[in-house]
Amino acid sequence: VQTDPARVFAWPVRVYYEDTDFGGLVYYANYLRFFERARTEWLRSLGVDQQRLAAEDGLQFVVRRAEIGFLRGARLDDVLNVTVEVMERKHTYLRLRQCALRGEEPMAEAMVQAACVRRDSLKPAALPASLAARLGA
Amino acid sequence: VQTDPARVFAWPVRVYYEDTDFGGLVYYANYLRFFERARTEWLRSLGVDQQRLAAEDGLQFVVRRAEIGFLRGARLDDVLNVTVEVMERKHTYLRLRQCALRGEEPMAEAMVQAACVRRDSLKPAALPASLAARLGA
Amino acid sequence: VQTDPARVFAWPVRVYYEDTDFGGLVYYANYLRFFERARTEWLRSLGVDQQRLAAEDGLQFVVRRAEIGFLRGARLDDVLNVTVEVMERKHTYLRLRQCALRGEEPMAEAMVQAACVRRDSLKPAALPASLAARLGA
Amino acid sequence: VQTDPARVFAWPVRVYYEDTDFGGLVYYANYLRFFERARTEWLRSLGVDQQRLAAEDGLQFVVRRAEIGFLRGARLDDVLNVTVEVMERKHTYLRLRQCALRGEEPMAEAMVQAACVRRDSLKPAALPASLAARLGA
Repeated sequence: VQTDPARVFAWPVRVYYEDTDFGGLVYYANYLRFFERARTEWLRSLGVDQQRLAAEDGLQFVVRRAEIGFLRGARLDDVLNVTVEVMERKHTYLRLRQCALRGEEPMAEAMVQAACVRRDSLKPAALPASLAARLGA
Repeated sequence: VQTDPARVFAWPVRVYYEDTDFGGLVYYANYLRFFERARTEWLRSLGVDQQRLAAEDGLQFVVRRAEIGFLRGARLDDVLNVTVEVMERKHTYLRLRQCALRGEEPMAEAMVQAACVRRDSLKPAALPASLAARLGA
Repeated sequence: VQTDPARVFAWPVRVYYEDTDFGGLVYYANYLRFFERARTEWLRSLGVDQQRLAAEDGLQFVVRRAEIGFLRGARLDDVLNVTVEVMERKHTYLRLRQCALRGEEPMAEAMVQAACVRRDSLKPAALPASLAARLGA
Repeated sequence: VQTDPARVFAWPVRVYYEDTDFGGLVYYANYLRFFERARTEWLRSLGVDQQRLAAEDGLQFVVRRAEIGFLRGARLDDVLNVTVEVMERKHTYLRLRQCALRGEEPMAEAMVQAACVRRDSLKPAALPASLAARLGA
């Protein structure tokens, strides 16, 4: 089950200087960047190319809502495993559980509502059919 | 009431190129930067200097939890009014309501739990006495 | 002479947590963000609105070249005065001298070549007429 | 020669949403982040762990000077190959040539002076002996 990319996906992210702050740890807002990189790679693994989605279909994914717990402080040079798991699939959006793990320890975890919208109007749009098909019923 | 900086505080933030992304709007994680700038200025308005707090008292504020709604897309050159309001005060942390407004319209809003911790151990610490005094009973 | 915004312009930038890194000082690439904020405000002071320039004229400023010296490390809470000075004006680009000063001390200084381009093709375009007029012969 | 990591090193960097701006391309300052990631991985490949260098030896690398040409605009989803090449080795610093390539095309190229400094004083320090040994005479 873990290896079905439509269910649980993981992407490694290295912590660089740019990610840290004066406290010596990862700056809190940067976990949202890490979560987004993992979502992008997860979409790519499911055949969704966001550059083409924008250019050809005029569609884009946006985050509508996020609940994030910042649990521990990741450090420079750490490699974090950032996960994506679909908790709920609706017609125009997904609810995803994401976690940034150092080994087995969660550094940050989040529930993210990612919606598909039209780029011109930002109005909700149906998830791309190919993605919906890959995610199953 | 609105003008008591211990209750509702507002700080203007201009949207620059660096804040936008390929979608033409503010990149979602950057609202957390805007919220943090407003918190820093709010603390400064209450007499808390974070550089000195770190150097002299070995203390730091960290965000433990954030629930954020991304409601509308702010654009390049917009000026956002970013607010801070204390919803709850505990011994070692604050629950803050924050909003990024363009005029009267909220672009993003959040509930943020900001905790005071020891810089060496990241263990919870009592809020600085001067801040607690300013925030009242 | 100092107060003629077409010659020397200055814009204050506060250093926040997000700007610092593990070293405790401003992360080097962030000076380029500070320089860009000052250029944006300088253009605004000369009547150039980049959002409108993009939407109405299909034009955008891009940095073609930058030579930057990182001289000292600015710290959390510092206020930097970021300057813009026109060194050379060509048909399609400007050579600007920029400095990030803490009091009288330069933290970083740069020579920046900022070019006007068509947004669709990224081909060079004449500087906006209103800007050229403001910058003089 | 190309494969000797002490001479030419290459590191792949994917362009994500966070890296782009309103113009639809990579925000110019972010190339400096990409260059720094490649330098970090290059140092790691030569046995230098910057977290340990800071904690055990009180040393840090800082960029003193950078000359950057922004040649073309990389796009969302592009994979850039970011190179590091030692052009000159001095007692306390290195002059590095760095390039961000998309296929064979350079998007940005830079000459970077990276100096080793004491973390407490920011005074110049000799390059770590192990690194100097790896870089040869």
